[in-house]
Amino acid sequence: MNENWEKVFGEERERLNELVLANGPIGIKRFFALDAQAYEAGALPAKTKELLGLVASMVLRCDECVSYHLVRCREEGTTREEFYEAFDVALVVGGSIVIPHLRLAAERLETLLETR
Amino acid sequence: MNENWEKVFGEERERLNELVLANGPIGIKRFFALDAQAYEAGALPAKTKELLGLVASMVLRCDECVSYHLVRCREEGTTREEFYEAFDVALVVGGSIVIPHLRLAAERLETLLETR
Amino acid sequence: MNENWEKVFGEERERLNELVLANGPIGIKRFFALDAQAYEAGALPAKTKELLGLVASMVLRCDECVSYHLVRCREEGTTREEFYEAFDVALVVGGSIVIPHLRLAAERLETLLETR
Amino acid sequence: MNENWEKVFGEERERLNELVLANGPIGIKRFFALDAQAYEAGALPAKTKELLGLVASMVLRCDECVSYHLVRCREEGTTREEFYEAFDVALVVGGSIVIPHLRLAAERLETLLETR
Amino acid sequence: MNENWEKVFGEERERLNELVLANGPIGIKRFFALDAQAYEAGALPAKTKELLGLVASMVLRCDECVSYHLVRCREEGTTREEFYEAFDVALVVGGSIVIPHLRLAAERLETLLETR
Amino acid sequence: MNENWEKVFGEERERLNELVLANGPIGIKRFFALDAQAYEAGALPAKTKELLGLVASMVLRCDECVSYHLVRCREEGTTREEFYEAFDVALVVGGSIVIPHLRLAAERLETLLETR
Repeated sequence: MNENWEKVFGEERERLNELVLANGPIGIKRFFALDAQAYEAGALPAKTKELLGLVASMVLRCDECVSYHLVRCREEGTTREEFYEAFDVALVVGGSIVIPHLRLAAERLETLLETR
Repeated sequence: MNENWEKVFGEERERLNELVLANGPIGIKRFFALDAQAYEAGALPAKTKELLGLVASMVLRCDECVSYHLVRCREEGTTREEFYEAFDVALVVGGSIVIPHLRLAAERLETLLETR
Repeated sequence: MNENWEKVFGEERERLNELVLANGPIGIKRFFALDAQAYEAGALPAKTKELLGLVASMVLRCDECVSYHLVRCREEGTTREEFYEAFDVALVVGGSIVIPHLRLAAERLETLLETR
Repeated sequence: MNENWEKVFGEERERLNELVLANGPIGIKRFFALDAQAYEAGALPAKTKELLGLVASMVLRCDECVSYHLVRCREEGTTREEFYEAFDVALVVGGSIVIPHLRLAAERLETLLETR
Repeated sequence: MNENWEKVFGEERERLNELVLANGPIGIKRFFALDAQAYEAGALPAKTKELLGLVASMVLRCDECVSYHLVRCREEGTTREEFYEAFDVALVVGGSIVIPHLRLAAERLETLLETR
Repeated sequence: MNENWEKVFGEERERLNELVLANGPIGIKRFFALDAQAYEAGALPAKTKELLGLVASMVLRCDECVSYHLVRCREEGTTREEFYEAFDVALVVGGSIVIPHLRLAAERLETLLETR
């Protein structure tokens, strides 16, 4: 496991998002904007919204999406205990099929808790 | 749309849960207990956990699960604005395929907001 | 099977979309606009895009979405033979789990072919 | 709950399968044949294969598919205890999102156990 | 990113398909044949059918399937603009959870557009 | 393909399970216990239950879960013919989207059949 996953993941994500946005129709650009806006603080705080994105990503079993929301949740101050309670909800809703994604999330969470 | 959906839904759910628990092995009973415990207040408040369950249910497109968490979120004090911000996250994560479930949730939410 | 399904379905869809849009945040309204725009004629004709929406809806197993795209595909001039070839792709990609949705689509298609 | 669900379900299924097969391309007919053949006794007995189909249908959350395999499993002699152990595997793999389908299966199983 | 992905991917796919077909029952062989036939030109042209397969693969989030249909769509003459409009439909239907697969598709598309 | 996949996979799985269990709430620990118990011999033999887990994992398209149940099925004495008949059921239920997971399973099965 590369301890540097956050940097590698973030740069690759950025590079390919630029490729998509440079070539895609206006609809894709607007979708990306909507995606960002959905997590901005409103009646619900940004931290809660990022936790919603995290659990949705876990039950849909998307490792990249989980990793992205792990970083954002941590930036919003989510603690280890809070992360694991959210993981527990995802596990119960989504079943054992979620476990491989939970394992990866647990490992990546450790490097986030050390460095942020 | 039956305005009484919450009562009908709750009673049917209860009746069939009893059937399952009366006939199922101990593993199913334990799963049901784990399911309930995952939403109890801990490091995260119960309201946040119910919102996690709501959004997970929407992106997995389970109307019964959505209805259950709508009721529980409302019991925990979730407001209309908070509900719709959670719906927005579910819609962006899960895409237009979520919309039929969003429509049903919106209708059921109105009766919940009137009666609770 | 109500032969009138298209009218009932369309009116209920319209009524609930209005409820969602009247109460939802700007992000949900924008998503609905993006959704409509994605199917407008561009480099690909509208008919092809509606077929893409139809097959995506079948493999994701959403009856309401399938019904919506059946109507739109028919408005764009899709023939019975074309519909069934698209159904065949959906069936092969998505497997036997798609069959219940294929059955409903086949029945609804008959009323569309008679009335449009 | 109509105790007669098996008859209504079977006739509707038959009627619509005929519609699909009358109109569909040869590929769809061949798929239906493959679907039937996959459950025929071979190295694994038919009962085991039907249980595989049942659990696959539960974790993919298709009520019609679940109902079909409930009937077939019962025809192959599956007992209540065996059904519930298979349900338990489906519940653990697929999570709480499976529960509404488990409830329906439990109810339908009761009428099957009484009449077959 | 290996610019040679198409060759590596195609050879690995071929090698393992042979392993499956050498060991599998006749039902698996027939399924593979049905899979190929579903995309042959009929009432709908092969290009349209491959686009259906591409969008179905994106909303079901299968990178290998997406890569396969990218190659086949390109062989049928799909242009960059057409690809991105199909990606847009997939994104709107399937939501942000599709984005990681869209990113990979965008990168692989660039090498296809250069070499074919 | 590393012929040693079973050892690498098993050790990594073990290492990360320990991380999850060391940090997670009691609910996650209990879920892991329920997961193990669901496959223990009861009215249905352990081999049948592992086959249920294998097919459920294939139609839900989780390579790690498939690999785990391949090993367990083999430990319970499943033969090549039985494995491929189960793969056939998974393929027919889940469709061509299952094929990439079937390819990986076929390759991993060969090393299991040689060494166990």
